[in-house]
Amino acid sequence: MNSNLMEYLKEKERQIVDYIKSDPIQNLIKPRHIYEGVLSYLYRPAKRLRPSVLLMSCGCFGGEEKEKQAIPAAVGIELFHTWTLVHDDIIDNDPLRRGGPTVHTLIKEKSRDEWGLGNEPAAEYGTDMAILAGDIQHGWCISAFADCCLKMGVNALTVLRIIKYLETHTLCNLINGEAVDVQFSLANGSRPVTVINEDRVIEMLWLKTGILYEFAGLAGAMLGKDTADINDPDVQAIKTFTGKCGIAFQLQDDILGILGDEEVLGKPVGSDIREGKKTTIVLEALKNADSRQRELILGILGKKDCTDEEIETVRKLFIDLNGIEHTRKLALGYIKDALPYLDRIPDSKYKQLLYEWADFMVNREF
Amino acid sequence: MNSNLMEYLKEKERQIVDYIKSDPIQNLIKPRHIYEGVLSYLYRPAKRLRPSVLLMSCGCFGGEEKEKQAIPAAVGIELFHTWTLVHDDIIDNDPLRRGGPTVHTLIKEKSRDEWGLGNEPAAEYGTDMAILAGDIQHGWCISAFADCCLKMGVNALTVLRIIKYLETHTLCNLINGEAVDVQFSLANGSRPVTVINEDRVIEMLWLKTGILYEFAGLAGAMLGKDTADINDPDVQAIKTFTGKCGIAFQLQDDILGILGDEEVLGKPVGSDIREGKKTTIVLEALKNADSRQRELILGILGKKDCTDEEIETVRKLFIDLNGIEHTRKLALGYIKDALPYLDRIPDSKYKQLLYEWADFMVNREF
Repeated sequence: MNSNLMEYLKEKERQIVDYIKSDPIQNLIKPRHIYEGVLSYLYRPAKRLRPSVLLMSCGCFGGEEKEKQAIPAAVGIELFHTWTLVHDDIIDNDPLRRGGPTVHTLIKEKSRDEWGLGNEPAAEYGTDMAILAGDIQHGWCISAFADCCLKMGVNALTVLRIIKYLETHTLCNLINGEAVDVQFSLANGSRPVTVINEDRVIEMLWLKTGILYEFAGLAGAMLGKDTADINDPDVQAIKTFTGKCGIAFQLQDDILGILGDEEVLGKPVGSDIREGKKTTIVLEALKNADSRQRELILGILGKKDCTDEEIETVRKLFIDLNGIEHTRKLALGYIKDALPYLDRIPDSKYKQLLYEWADFMVNREF
Repeated sequence: MNSNLMEYLKEKERQIVDYIKSDPIQNLIKPRHIYEGVLSYLYRPAKRLRPSVLLMSCGCFGGEEKEKQAIPAAVGIELFHTWTLVHDDIIDNDPLRRGGPTVHTLIKEKSRDEWGLGNEPAAEYGTDMAILAGDIQHGWCISAFADCCLKMGVNALTVLRIIKYLETHTLCNLINGEAVDVQFSLANGSRPVTVINEDRVIEMLWLKTGILYEFAGLAGAMLGKDTADINDPDVQAIKTFTGKCGIAFQLQDDILGILGDEEVLGKPVGSDIREGKKTTIVLEALKNADSRQRELILGILGKKDCTDEEIETVRKLFIDLNGIEHTRKLALGYIKDALPYLDRIPDSKYKQLLYEWADFMVNREF
């Protein structure tokens, strides 16, 4: 199942890593801790969904030739995604990412091991370097997009419009999502900084994830058609399709955060519960809970040091109180909404891959 | 003295602020704390030297017409400078910037006042939002450069090459400078993480300041000549000139950090001493100190809670031990080196302004 997609993803992963490895910008990245921070996530195994969606969307209109020209843009969106992860990981105090330490944790440990720094100065140094490493990746991202023109011969105006869209519309919405997310988590417990309901949670999913998938479709289609017109109907159709599937992706992510296999995911399951992450799963379960169940959930949710047994209790309640099933239905709804937007696109292996990708969004286990 | 330059700077300040105010990207910047963080430094009084140098360099080749087209690029370099300040202020734990609170301090205070957050969560929230506010400014910077083409009609390829240069060469060197700076300050006291001598301090000045002034000259000249050729001899000449003057600017900044008037500067004098900033002033003074003086300086330098009297003691030693005079001579040397690079540029009011600017770099008191 999805074997074409899996093969395609593997091929793109290789092309993306090869391109990253060959980019001479790396010679400019110093000192060593910054260099190691900038590259760490990039070489860890990852699905590379955003760059692949960009390339599939490109192929739908421009075939293999345009897809090849768009490789730097695929690298660009991967770098964009990566710098936001590096900064978000600092903000969320996360220790792990893609099966290894987060950038701030990695550099903290290095400074402790290499220089014998104490715990506190090492943590501060790690955070400082991780902020800067993310900034470098942000710049590298823009450089990669520019290379679509400077190295691959794509029209300069097309590339400029894509860059402008990414750095205004996409960036501002994405950061709005992250900031609101932080405000959500401050509202934990008794302090109602913001009022949280399902609409707001979904809006946040759109901001934090849908928006970058929208961009992947938009940029890919513009490169495939070689058009600088953001309002082109094909561009808009693909953009809507990839954005809706992106929300389904995130809903599925929340499900895997509760039910998923730690080994397969490469991140600690239960961390969503420990962090008190506000998901549609939580809201639905709370809606259906009696007062005892409600108290049980709220007592454990966001408890940083809760036991495996407590995690298991909450997990079971989320299932029994329809939280998981409700969220799965939401995800399927987004995919169903998304599919008709592909109708106007001519048939091709790329269109077929987009269909498989949409299916993978709600049926994946990793 | 320098009255033409002062008038020019005032006019550009107005044009830059007007352009910033009218940029529709602001409607996208949410939530409110991020919006306030993004805009806070931009509207505080500032010299706007980097954008003005870009515009003067542009005018040297393209006159008033090209200078007008380059206004978004001037805004872009101001935004670039600003986001690096916002992130550096987090890293350096600085409370003040341009006569007001730093972004992370501002948002910390707002969250405390508005939501009643405790000191620690408020500080963490302030830092989180400041990281994101800087990221938005980074994106806005690129958007502004893109507008040179999209709104002002400059050749798209010229703009793309400028953006690529900024986001690779300029950015990587600048961040290298900031990272090495952090490592320098870790080397404070007994832990010699890095070996510090005058050559390394000057290299850091070049990275942290010279490099962005180089870019200002380079981008301005490319826009003025409407060339996408970074290696154009005029572009290279102006770039070298503005870079060398930029180092002189920073050396003078270090002098003002010791001798300057707090009121005029808008930042606390003595903070360089409290932070233990490694400058050419410090190194020269230590070189000429006897063992008692050396002990005195090292005992106070980097002492966060040192008294005004101790500051005064160190200040006097820096003067008596030739630290100030030596640094002033270094600065004058850079200006002297820089001036011949303007010889190839035809005479104009813009060239005259660049001469005045070079003079201002070493004779300013604010």
